[in-house]
Amino acid sequence: MTAFGSRLVSAISDRSPLCVGIDPHPHLLRDWGLPDAPESLRSFGLAVVEAAAGRAAAIKPQVAFFERHGSAGLRALEDVLAVARDRDVLVIGDAKRGDVGTSVAAYGEAWLHPDSPLFVDALTVSAFQGTGSLASVFELASEHERGLFVLCATSNPEAAGIQLATTETGETVAATIAREVAVLNSAAASSMGSIGLVLGATIDVRDFGIEVDANTPVLAPGFGAQGGRLEDLRTLFPASAPVLAAVSRSILEHGPDGLVAAIDEAVATVSA
Amino acid sequence: MTAFGSRLVSAISDRSPLCVGIDPHPHLLRDWGLPDAPESLRSFGLAVVEAAAGRAAAIKPQVAFFERHGSAGLRALEDVLAVARDRDVLVIGDAKRGDVGTSVAAYGEAWLHPDSPLFVDALTVSAFQGTGSLASVFELASEHERGLFVLCATSNPEAAGIQLATTETGETVAATIAREVAVLNSAAASSMGSIGLVLGATIDVRDFGIEVDANTPVLAPGFGAQGGRLEDLRTLFPASAPVLAAVSRSILEHGPDGLVAAIDEAVATVSA
Repeated sequence: MTAFGSRLVSAISDRSPLCVGIDPHPHLLRDWGLPDAPESLRSFGLAVVEAAAGRAAAIKPQVAFFERHGSAGLRALEDVLAVARDRDVLVIGDAKRGDVGTSVAAYGEAWLHPDSPLFVDALTVSAFQGTGSLASVFELASEHERGLFVLCATSNPEAAGIQLATTETGETVAATIAREVAVLNSAAASSMGSIGLVLGATIDVRDFGIEVDANTPVLAPGFGAQGGRLEDLRTLFPASAPVLAAVSRSILEHGPDGLVAAIDEAVATVSA
Repeated sequence: MTAFGSRLVSAISDRSPLCVGIDPHPHLLRDWGLPDAPESLRSFGLAVVEAAAGRAAAIKPQVAFFERHGSAGLRALEDVLAVARDRDVLVIGDAKRGDVGTSVAAYGEAWLHPDSPLFVDALTVSAFQGTGSLASVFELASEHERGLFVLCATSNPEAAGIQLATTETGETVAATIAREVAVLNSAAASSMGSIGLVLGATIDVRDFGIEVDANTPVLAPGFGAQGGRLEDLRTLFPASAPVLAAVSRSILEHGPDGLVAAIDEAVATVSA
């Protein structure tokens, strides 16, 4: 096992920068001919794992759609994760967790500790209580060679108010987070950092004054249904850092039988 | 059933402003003589429910400590919630969830829909992606007469960088969130709003330029171990809005046999 950042570079190089979302929204379940029930989350998730493995760098279960079914939904996610661990694909838990002290440490243990049934390769987190509030999770990730993606500048228009606010250094909130993450990555032992940023595919990082550090991975949601174009991936972020292009609905809407073809097409577009 | 804001006013008036945390941290489990296992989360949580019901306005399970045990931990939380629903106590799910679009709506359905096993009276949420990103959750809460507490100004020192940043209106991020929540509450049908703010017990709201609206409930963590003093509750927030004083460790450390006495003492202090 090696640090997440290095594994991510290999996964993108060996396969593609594609990250396929597992978003079992009730509408999608219906389109797939599945009832809105925990067992459907399991079969939906497993279908995506099998189609994405060997093709995409990563899969990204949206935890909200599993939590929507309570503990039974989380149990289904655990089953999906158990299968994914044996496949040729990284798993990013899209949970956007955040808190302070022993509480945020407990979230870290839930998702980044090898003994947890929710163990994933990387987790999305929120720094509303300060990048420093996540320190215990950064340490846990490092210890177990896991990764994190910190929310930084997101695609939804309502986000600008907070993410463009000016901090005491004169930077935007987003730029401050990006700089603090870059510092953490520069202190890492591996050549590529394991703490990434979530940067929306439809934003212009220059609007936020963000310097995308060459050692900081990027998770970019917002391709497809949200307006980002996969063919623009290479020009979106002016840096040599690895960028994961997250695509969900526009692949998942092809149904279980159309998944492989839709993933192959997305890989071809993003690699062209 | 009435709107959450009205129920909260009644609960504080009938019992006390105390909100007892359910934080089954591994250290506390050990102090209680319990192994670090899902079954212990259940008995820990049920003990707090029984001790707090009829005395405290609310209980506040910290979801991170349940999620730490995966689906089995969440199952234990569901059992605790099922018992709490029949007791004389409001339940605030301290999950600090946040996302956009259908994902954040799914979190809302997990915690605020009557058919969900995780159904609670109110949920804590994070607005890092903008107060507007939570719109679907506000609607769901209103529909089912549930409440929300939006993270606003928190007690941990690392939070100041983001929460004190200046938005385009010239306000701090925290003040902007407080104002946007007040507007939402002014449009509510009930006399007391159901969307509250999380304001740390150790901060001075004036430092953040926050106007605490008289129709906006406050959840104030940080009493006890974190330095806030229960005897200061009435002077902490210069408003007539209902304030819940959240206390966790300094009550829970008294163990299962000392819970009732510790809660009675906290109620006496906060009501003096």
